[in-house]
Amino acid sequence: MTVPVLGLEELEAAARPRVVLDTVRAALIAHAEGRTTVPPPLHMEFPEAEGDCHVKAGWIAGGDDFTVKIASGFYRNSALGMPTNSGLVCVLSARTGQVRAVLDDRGWLTAWRTAAAGALITHAMSRPEAAMLGVFGTGEQARLQVRWLAMLRPLTKVLVCGRSERKAAALCEWLGGHGLDAEPAGAEEAAGADIVVTTTPATAPVLEADAVRPGAHVTGIGADMPHKNELPPALFRRAETIATDDHDQCLHHGDFGRAVRAGAVAQDCDIAAGALLLRQMQRSATAITVADLTGVGALDAALASALLRAAGA
Amino acid sequence: MTVPVLGLEELEAAARPRVVLDTVRAALIAHAEGRTTVPPPLHMEFPEAEGDCHVKAGWIAGGDDFTVKIASGFYRNSALGMPTNSGLVCVLSARTGQVRAVLDDRGWLTAWRTAAAGALITHAMSRPEAAMLGVFGTGEQARLQVRWLAMLRPLTKVLVCGRSERKAAALCEWLGGHGLDAEPAGAEEAAGADIVVTTTPATAPVLEADAVRPGAHVTGIGADMPHKNELPPALFRRAETIATDDHDQCLHHGDFGRAVRAGAVAQDCDIAAGALLLRQMQRSATAITVADLTGVGALDAALASALLRAAGA
Repeated sequence: MTVPVLGLEELEAAARPRVVLDTVRAALIAHAEGRTTVPPPLHMEFPEAEGDCHVKAGWIAGGDDFTVKIASGFYRNSALGMPTNSGLVCVLSARTGQVRAVLDDRGWLTAWRTAAAGALITHAMSRPEAAMLGVFGTGEQARLQVRWLAMLRPLTKVLVCGRSERKAAALCEWLGGHGLDAEPAGAEEAAGADIVVTTTPATAPVLEADAVRPGAHVTGIGADMPHKNELPPALFRRAETIATDDHDQCLHHGDFGRAVRAGAVAQDCDIAAGALLLRQMQRSATAITVADLTGVGALDAALASALLRAAGA
Repeated sequence: MTVPVLGLEELEAAARPRVVLDTVRAALIAHAEGRTTVPPPLHMEFPEAEGDCHVKAGWIAGGDDFTVKIASGFYRNSALGMPTNSGLVCVLSARTGQVRAVLDDRGWLTAWRTAAAGALITHAMSRPEAAMLGVFGTGEQARLQVRWLAMLRPLTKVLVCGRSERKAAALCEWLGGHGLDAEPAGAEEAAGADIVVTTTPATAPVLEADAVRPGAHVTGIGADMPHKNELPPALFRRAETIATDDHDQCLHHGDFGRAVRAGAVAQDCDIAAGALLLRQMQRSATAITVADLTGVGALDAALASALLRAAGA
């Protein structure tokens, strides 16, 4: 008998929102409390094929399973009609080291935990009555962040700001089909919403700090490498509260680190985003709050383990 | 459709000796010529379960595929009636990054490439007429090293030296069943053979340097971590030729490094074992030669790729 492989269909069936949200919430809290293990990743480069491969592992202390996630990106593939990304998640028992399953997830595990983490933290940091959302970006994470946040609180309006008018219109139509009132918007308009979420691969700020209104919350999802940048340092300077999903990672790879290096804020001014899920954040009605999320690898282990359990594997 | 998984049965069927030997020979030569890529491995520790997990990747330049090998060792498992080791090998295209297959090999890929590499190098370094083999150790690698060497040259006698008389007798019986004249022997007798191969997890020398005869060749397979040791520094001092499968790795993790640190030999006195497969080594009839092999991870990629091709996957 060979190792069981779970495909996307089985994983999607197992990934009910309640399971994903509860698992990601618990994992974010564990990470904020220092109960996660994330070893330095393994990297390979294939310059001739414009490709790379990253292997990341993670474990939440006490958890049944740990994961080893293999993710490749070969950037000429789209010209060949093939997906840019490939990989898989190997789930191993943290008690016996036995391989429990291979998740042939096409990157969805990462997409789901990113969406759930973003939605949970955005919801926790936004004013209770905030209902108008501005989203930057029109890709998979834009779609997921809106949908998952809409599961946590009512959204009366979604303003979609994208570089491509066609893609922005398509996302609005898709959101409309899911019961959300969405329309394309310019950057200033979208940045003026009650809640702002950025999900782009931008390398320069997508909004002006002054366009964000008092009382608003802004979550940055896209910047996860030093050369990427979505939120301007001046926005961090305006913020009453800055939360990071992983202090070191956000300092080295995120918008928070860029704001620190620009001298806008002190490098110890942030709080752990996961801690905000445990107790209600105190905020004034006119404060601006910012969350910088770069992705917590240890969440993969928790979510993979929960999906395996839900799939009855 | 999910990623194809090849089990041990399919891999064993594909692992015909000619395929394995040709592939490992070419890969050892590539490694000697610096045409392999091996990034620093990823490690995780699970102290409460006495477990660890290592992830190693490798690629031979120009090769179709690269591999990511996940290997766990949980040292309380045998008490639970479970295998100590688990893991898998993920094979990805080096042209497109797509996952080609998962090899659910239970560690056999590593065992085979270690056996083939040892046999090829032992054969290349031994005198043409050497036919009496002394083997230290009675485990899987002892069995494999003898069998694979016997495919490359006739062996008139195999002397088996093991700490357990029962296991030594069992190995002799097994070898006898495969047409080899094998008998248990003490360390001095086994060390006096024409060819000596050590395959133990020993942490102190298993033989005396003086017991090795002029004209003999010795290959050390077992010492692959700094605390392990099979061959005494004095044997390296007696050697006319010292070959290492990976200079840096043998210097830091092998018996060669121990001999260097003991002041027995200079740290640049070794030659690349793989280079000996390309051209016949010159040796005097009375010289002692030594090979220190710690395992070349890039061989996994070459062998996995060849087995996938042979299996028609």
